[in-house]
Amino acid sequence: MANDTRERLLEASARLFREQGYAGTGLKQITAAGGAPWGSLYHFFPGGKEQLGVEAIAHSGARYERLFELTFARADADVVRCVRDFFQLSVDALERSGWGDGCPIATVALEVASTSEPLRHACAEVFASWEAVFARRLAGAGLAEERAADLATYALAAFEGAIVLSRAAHDTRPLRVTADVVAGTLTSALAG
Amino acid sequence: MANDTRERLLEASARLFREQGYAGTGLKQITAAGGAPWGSLYHFFPGGKEQLGVEAIAHSGARYERLFELTFARADADVVRCVRDFFQLSVDALERSGWGDGCPIATVALEVASTSEPLRHACAEVFASWEAVFARRLAGAGLAEERAADLATYALAAFEGAIVLSRAAHDTRPLRVTADVVAGTLTSALAG
Repeated sequence: MANDTRERLLEASARLFREQGYAGTGLKQITAAGGAPWGSLYHFFPGGKEQLGVEAIAHSGARYERLFELTFARADADVVRCVRDFFQLSVDALERSGWGDGCPIATVALEVASTSEPLRHACAEVFASWEAVFARRLAGAGLAEERAADLATYALAAFEGAIVLSRAAHDTRPLRVTADVVAGTLTSALAG
Repeated sequence: MANDTRERLLEASARLFREQGYAGTGLKQITAAGGAPWGSLYHFFPGGKEQLGVEAIAHSGARYERLFELTFARADADVVRCVRDFFQLSVDALERSGWGDGCPIATVALEVASTSEPLRHACAEVFASWEAVFARRLAGAGLAEERAADLATYALAAFEGAIVLSRAAHDTRPLRVTADVVAGTLTSALAG
């Protein structure tokens, strides 16, 4: 039950940070969205909003890392096909959510990059974990390790930026167009 | 003098939004940073923070649009070289500023995409204006109009995402690596 409340607070935080950022999300809003009593927040997160932020970032990051691993692990999975699938998952999530359900990390990352080292570090760890999943898969498909790492960084950058443009435009075209170009680039790299 | 105060408020807002986002920036912080009396804010921006936000986004957007136009207009400018230059400008700005001086629009765009239509719209207009500058230049280098528009969107997405990753990591590697891959993709597209 205690763990359940803690989990609900993390889930609510993750969703609100993803939709409206860290600074714009109040602790009262988090406890209300998590259906948790006010006192529970400081009970589970004695470090307050920053501790909750760090744990919510890690929580979302781990969930998406599992999603990436699962997608790549499918028996029929071709690496370029998987990358297209990630872009498509984001297209679907943005349309379904009224443009709220983008990257769970990027908004906070941009807000805190020069203002909170604990939060900034949590975001950097998540991005690094996602890049590592993708880099391993590209290396498994035959690329040299350094090349695989560089292309993983590039593909994640293109993905994150396409989410920024699609959310701003309320239009999934940036994600769809970017997916095509990135898929082409990766196909060439794997063939060459 | 009045225009001067107005301009200083816009400049201060643009800088603070870029560094720490919209929600995390208070009006008192803006007037202090702009060296403006408190009352001047509502004098120049009767619509308050949202009006100031919309105008600051447009103000920054127009400044960067001119920078993009100027870079592309250089007599010796090769389009792929210019794209590399934009990535390098961002590398330099991030290192010089302690990771604060990234994209003037992206943080706000992610914060407000599903919460403020006036701000969201201002961000979308800016991104569209930047894409248009780049698309015209790619079309001028020989690409069909639709292909030029798609590659412009892709290049901007990769650029924006690389800034997210570099700011989070406090490391310019994502910008440098992504610049190389994007330059390669554009070179192939122009050759093919």
